[in-house]
Amino acid sequence: MTEREAPFAYSGLDRVFHERARLGIVTSLAGHADGLGFSELKALCGLTDGNLARHLQVLEEAGFVDIEKTGEGSRPLTRCKLTSKGRVRFAEYLTVLEEVLRQGARVREAGPSSRSLRTRPV
Amino acid sequence: MTEREAPFAYSGLDRVFHERARLGIVTSLAGHADGLGFSELKALCGLTDGNLARHLQVLEEAGFVDIEKTGEGSRPLTRCKLTSKGRVRFAEYLTVLEEVLRQGARVREAGPSSRSLRTRPV
Repeated sequence: MTEREAPFAYSGLDRVFHERARLGIVTSLAGHADGLGFSELKALCGLTDGNLARHLQVLEEAGFVDIEKTGEGSRPLTRCKLTSKGRVRFAEYLTVLEEVLRQGARVREAGPSSRSLRTRPV
Repeated sequence: MTEREAPFAYSGLDRVFHERARLGIVTSLAGHADGLGFSELKALCGLTDGNLARHLQVLEEAGFVDIEKTGEGSRPLTRCKLTSKGRVRFAEYLTVLEEVLRQGARVREAGPSSRSLRTRPV
């Protein structure tokens, strides 16, 4: 099924990224080329330990995130980074998201109750 | 949990909209204030009868889509439309999506090959 045949199929919306918690994780990592620690990531995304660990595993299995464990004993440290593949694929995902936004923006101009607002730029 | 506390929690990404097939359905309807027929929608979104029916039901139960059945006998017609509530809530969802894009766009500039850009605010 091509986009031409079904322009709203959005087959490019990779399910690994298109999940709210994982989207938060990846977006956080996107701005940190040196990666983020587990605790920082947990706070930024508002996730529990268990949830963050589970989603990181999905991202690691897809090859999008690299998880490095350093330190030993009572304070092991986990550092998470986007891989090059993750970076490229996330950029592709964002391109589809831009298309969704472009097409969806018509919701702000086509509503019967917002006709007076239709002159506002979208 | 506020956005301030966890800026990447994206709690505004309503799960009813944030599902690939439903996102396609709602985006299709967003540009058609008069609604779309079941078959048109099916073709635009590249969905099977069963999948489209299932997702429409979720959208209807959330009060975001209105489903009107007309015609009788061998050719009943189903017409789907965004409700005012659906339109407003989808516009809110798109606002969060814009924020995701804004924050995620750093993936294109913060790669390991662009360390010189790290002085830019994150």
